[in-house]
Amino acid sequence: MSKKLTKRSEDYSKWYNEIVSMAELAEISAVRGCMVIKPYGYAIWEKIQNELDTRFKDTGHENAYFPLFVPKSLFEAEEKNAEGFAKECAVVTHYRLKNDPIKRGKLIVDEESKLEEELIVRPTSEAIIWNTYKNWIQSYRDLPIKINQWANVVRWEMRTRLFLRTAEFLWQEGHTAHSTKKEAVQETKLINNLYKSFVEDFMSISVITGTKSESEKFAGAEETYCIEALMQDGKALQAGTSHFLGQNFAKAFDVKFSNDEGNLDYVWATSWGVSTRLMGALIMSHGDDYGLVLPPKLSPYQVIIIPVFKSSHELDLINNYLNNLKNQLKDLAIDYKIDERDNISPGKKFNEYEVKGVPIRLCVGLRDIENKTIELFRRDEMKKSLISICEASNNISKLLLEIQESLLKKSKLFLKNNTKVASNYSDFKSMIKSGGFILAHWDGSEESEQKIKKETKATIRCIDDSFTDEGICIISGRKSKQLVYFAKAY
Amino acid sequence: MSKKLTKRSEDYSKWYNEIVSMAELAEISAVRGCMVIKPYGYAIWEKIQNELDTRFKDTGHENAYFPLFVPKSLFEAEEKNAEGFAKECAVVTHYRLKNDPIKRGKLIVDEESKLEEELIVRPTSEAIIWNTYKNWIQSYRDLPIKINQWANVVRWEMRTRLFLRTAEFLWQEGHTAHSTKKEAVQETKLINNLYKSFVEDFMSISVITGTKSESEKFAGAEETYCIEALMQDGKALQAGTSHFLGQNFAKAFDVKFSNDEGNLDYVWATSWGVSTRLMGALIMSHGDDYGLVLPPKLSPYQVIIIPVFKSSHELDLINNYLNNLKNQLKDLAIDYKIDERDNISPGKKFNEYEVKGVPIRLCVGLRDIENKTIELFRRDEMKKSLISICEASNNISKLLLEIQESLLKKSKLFLKNNTKVASNYSDFKSMIKSGGFILAHWDGSEESEQKIKKETKATIRCIDDSFTDEGICIISGRKSKQLVYFAKAY
Repeated sequence: MSKKLTKRSEDYSKWYNEIVSMAELAEISAVRGCMVIKPYGYAIWEKIQNELDTRFKDTGHENAYFPLFVPKSLFEAEEKNAEGFAKECAVVTHYRLKNDPIKRGKLIVDEESKLEEELIVRPTSEAIIWNTYKNWIQSYRDLPIKINQWANVVRWEMRTRLFLRTAEFLWQEGHTAHSTKKEAVQETKLINNLYKSFVEDFMSISVITGTKSESEKFAGAEETYCIEALMQDGKALQAGTSHFLGQNFAKAFDVKFSNDEGNLDYVWATSWGVSTRLMGALIMSHGDDYGLVLPPKLSPYQVIIIPVFKSSHELDLINNYLNNLKNQLKDLAIDYKIDERDNISPGKKFNEYEVKGVPIRLCVGLRDIENKTIELFRRDEMKKSLISICEASNNISKLLLEIQESLLKKSKLFLKNNTKVASNYSDFKSMIKSGGFILAHWDGSEESEQKIKKETKATIRCIDDSFTDEGICIISGRKSKQLVYFAKAY
Repeated sequence: MSKKLTKRSEDYSKWYNEIVSMAELAEISAVRGCMVIKPYGYAIWEKIQNELDTRFKDTGHENAYFPLFVPKSLFEAEEKNAEGFAKECAVVTHYRLKNDPIKRGKLIVDEESKLEEELIVRPTSEAIIWNTYKNWIQSYRDLPIKINQWANVVRWEMRTRLFLRTAEFLWQEGHTAHSTKKEAVQETKLINNLYKSFVEDFMSISVITGTKSESEKFAGAEETYCIEALMQDGKALQAGTSHFLGQNFAKAFDVKFSNDEGNLDYVWATSWGVSTRLMGALIMSHGDDYGLVLPPKLSPYQVIIIPVFKSSHELDLINNYLNNLKNQLKDLAIDYKIDERDNISPGKKFNEYEVKGVPIRLCVGLRDIENKTIELFRRDEMKKSLISICEASNNISKLLLEIQESLLKKSKLFLKNNTKVASNYSDFKSMIKSGGFILAHWDGSEESEQKIKKETKATIRCIDDSFTDEGICIISGRKSKQLVYFAKAY
């Protein structure tokens, strides 16, 4: 922990990688592009999982589990979806190893175990799930089906970055089936709103929402809704997507149902997901030059207590002094940890938990016992204060709420301050250099979208229907129906 | 649900498969040997997960996540482990598909995307984890490491059965690292005891515990501890294992630490796991000729309420009547579900929840409102009674505890009644025909073990150190140090 963190202004990308490593969130593994999620990082992911899982169940969803592998013939059934993922698929071709006849103690693939049909490691599960739903759905009485799955998926990315883009990642994927288009669209929107409120309430990250342009939407979807966050370096990050799949998968897998009038119709579908990418959003939304900054609701523990002692007798005195406070914290359901290691100095411990972003640090020495005090350090503002031990638990409880809200407020302000309107292409080009979201008129054509992307690297992040003012497309000069959000993105 | 369940006495194996299907626990998927875990089955698995996860954390373990893939060179590093799993490995050899130049709309593996080194889909994670631990461990101060992972693993089994033996299954795998042999052995035992008490307290399944013989232990372990349950057909089922790995993996991956005297030594290891196989144990321990029987602590909901009504007005009256009871159940943290479907008769609903093993069924009609009563049905004993609505919540609360205990008691009795001592081989051979555990003297040699296995299909399920009486091996006539448990097994 003696290594110093690079400043964001010096090298944002290096700063990110160092936080991931120094806060012990994750590390690169021996497998190309795959990561090891370390206990501290995984504990944050578990908090994300638990809260999302509760929200999914509260809105009538159930969990289930579908196979890791997709037979090639199923994978290719929905053509657009297959095309979208074909170039990044891990493919299982054999099911056995045997002893290498040449090198002793080594193994080689047994060519006799070649599979008749290759298996794709799921990059997403629409194919295997809709092939299953086919047998579950006969009548409108079998609908809706609202299932979520927590799983690992594999997309063979060439350039990987921990949490942001890895060959294997963890996610949840919801897959629902409905009897009407209206209900499926409602579900798609409901989940996108659920994502938005989760990310805001729980992760203190402000997002914009809307739909994707034709070229940016999910392969196989009719419409993709999304939440997009803005990182401190001015680049956007897609934090969650919810897809209205129309009847595309029902048609590809021949999933029909008899409606309440007895007629056969194809089933309507949605799918939606968020992934360990959210960890990247978390780091880049709140982190500062001292390390990670965690919203209390996501922190594996909200309070770290550091006793300053020179002997086990002194440590006993301090622990005795802390007894009441510990009980009070327990009663308030505030998770705390005490770091009693005697081979690391308090100063080093301070650094360690600053890098790890623990919201509140308490420090107690012998003098505090005399004075009935405790030193409280607020991580997000890097501010120290001396408070009375009697009032500590109350203060901490209030402060945790305040930190959670303050981080969201800061995030909202940052989003607002970094969202600009460009009325012409020359303004757009100069604005995009300094990052942020740029609202600009676009004629709706892929041609204009691609030209902007090629010349500025900015893409359409989302189309917000609440903007209705017509105007002139900044690049083609043709009529535009509305302003849309542009940004450079992760 | 109109299909009738096969009786256990007619065809135990068919009975098992039908319960899995009719109780909507799981089904065969389009992928050879892989299963779909359906929502009701997954909800039971979630209860198992939550409770185990709590117990792991309470004993100082943390969760983390390691890659799905193991590069072949790491996989083969610990030779015995590699040898044990080589014949059942799914192997990824390519990372891209491309359009089939001959068949339009079809995809083929892109031969240009062949991996330099093949990736094994993890059958277990010792290799990838110990290759990671290598970088985490320098000194005794870095130890112990006590990590658990919830994950999917793949073992290419030729004969598969839902939950009991599938190509992909879900499990938890703990991997710990210690500075002394003593501590590692303690951890191995602690976890095996944790498994035993979890399975007994929570799943109401009685088990025997002990160590495996040389030929039955985990590939790469020094010693394998296990819990073994006895199914109703007299076959044993290995329900959990905890391995003392010695320094085998530390040596294979060169993981050394400097001890408190400054000398370098190899790290001591354990690994341990339980899987979705527990679902099979659950079905075959408690199920009866009417379907699944769930211990209340594992049931997705403990109480199913079936209103008997002919109009929505009648349903309103009943719901109104139930309001108090519903609130009381909520306060008691008892999960209930009300089945208000109007296209399915109460009789069919009765069958459905009997097959699903819901511990308590309540049935309410208009006459109950008049009489201030409610009909209560106890699933494990298939007994109906009419009780007062005012006392219902209290009765239910007590009854749930009683059912949980009663199932364990029954399981214990079954285990006891089906464990016999064979003093000679002829007795052994006749006893093994009717199933159950047989305690017999064994000389400790693999030769004797294999002979018994070949001639009777019985294997040594576990060696319980509490048996210390010496005797004569039933097959070789040589001296034996103790009685060991034999059985035919799943």
